[in-house]
Amino acid sequence: MTGGLQVTALPPLPEVVPGDDLAALIRAVHPAPFPSGAALVVSHKVVSKAEGAIVRLADVVPGPRAHELAAALGKDPVVVQVVLDQSSEIVRARRGVLICRTHHGLVAAHAGVDGSNVDEGWCVTLPADPDGSARALRDALPGRPAVVIADSFGRPWRHGQAEVAIGCAGLVALDDQRGARDRQGQELQATQIAIADQVAAAADLVRGKASGQPAVLVGGLQRWTTAEHGPGAASLRRAADEDLFGA
Amino acid sequence: MTGGLQVTALPPLPEVVPGDDLAALIRAVHPAPFPSGAALVVSHKVVSKAEGAIVRLADVVPGPRAHELAAALGKDPVVVQVVLDQSSEIVRARRGVLICRTHHGLVAAHAGVDGSNVDEGWCVTLPADPDGSARALRDALPGRPAVVIADSFGRPWRHGQAEVAIGCAGLVALDDQRGARDRQGQELQATQIAIADQVAAAADLVRGKASGQPAVLVGGLQRWTTAEHGPGAASLRRAADEDLFGA
Repeated sequence: MTGGLQVTALPPLPEVVPGDDLAALIRAVHPAPFPSGAALVVSHKVVSKAEGAIVRLADVVPGPRAHELAAALGKDPVVVQVVLDQSSEIVRARRGVLICRTHHGLVAAHAGVDGSNVDEGWCVTLPADPDGSARALRDALPGRPAVVIADSFGRPWRHGQAEVAIGCAGLVALDDQRGARDRQGQELQATQIAIADQVAAAADLVRGKASGQPAVLVGGLQRWTTAEHGPGAASLRRAADEDLFGA
Repeated sequence: MTGGLQVTALPPLPEVVPGDDLAALIRAVHPAPFPSGAALVVSHKVVSKAEGAIVRLADVVPGPRAHELAAALGKDPVVVQVVLDQSSEIVRARRGVLICRTHHGLVAAHAGVDGSNVDEGWCVTLPADPDGSARALRDALPGRPAVVIADSFGRPWRHGQAEVAIGCAGLVALDDQRGARDRQGQELQATQIAIADQVAAAADLVRGKASGQPAVLVGGLQRWTTAEHGPGAASLRRAADEDLFGA
């Protein structure tokens, strides 16, 4: 029983507002250099807020498509317009939920737009460039830990949400073991492992949604941390034309 | 930084064969009682093998539907017949992959049928009743840890596989926080968290596919471990008619 992971929530951060220096807020609760093999998993919501990726609903004028979808789904046309503004494609519209492909290529309910943990009358969108946000945060933290920016995504055939990596830096996001062999010497089939998503999921187990603990330290990831930033969570996104399961 | 999780692979188990007492094999590498708040995550493959959920391909006679699908997908009709035998429905058949709903209601590539880490000429199927297997294993381990039986599943819009819980006992598989409030006092939206899937994902980070370490101990889950076995991983499966994303 050597090695292993340690997963620990950092102390709560203050409420984050646009223009805040998120790295400075994290350094204030964790001044020591992060150890080698560590990843810092950060809820996207504090990244979005610091970057100003929030929308005041009073400033949004819904267009005809938003009105039409809102009527069909029983939703607020203003919120639907915010979702449409974040989306390149509506993948599904059903049972009160819009599943969208965002401009980044992420497929998420409501394009990741969320009205919780934000002031009333506002909603939070996803960061414009989550891999870029992860790289910038990493470079501003002592010891340059890997950084994962996480959000909760639903899954088509399973109840409940699980955290996934929407951005990352300094971590092998997708471990491609195709061509590796099993204990019997047979080639492993279709073995690409979504490391960054699993790190995001592990981190979620140590914090509550309403706890104000958006940052979680995962230690023991030496197998997957890298000196360079690497290709990031972009490597986890299937392009629309590679979509195995969709319409 | 109190609390937190510790994730550690147990020492390797010997090769598991039908009729093996899996609990005895685990007790041999971990004789001490498991601590409170611990979950033991076990790869389904050793559970399937111990239970004899393996198929000798030489015994399988493919029917017309298997021949037809195999020709369309460029696959072995014998393997396709094994997949069909495990399935109640073909959800997708495309790009060489069959996405199936199993008789348990799990949606998985090839219905979870796998030819790696098994003798040539055989394949492994999913356990017949993974929640029942988890309960039986739990009752046979000292300290009655929570038990999660895990498998790697692909995801529609993301590259790479992530581990999910196909069976569990003694753990809140799905944490339903609907109705809970955020820090601003607003109700959280759509917040059901797939705890057991995230525990399975965390465990996967400490073992390699070919390492012979099918059992991983996750400590620090007191928030979600329960005295009773509970509803198990069945609570994570969406019924076909609840499928938000599918056809």
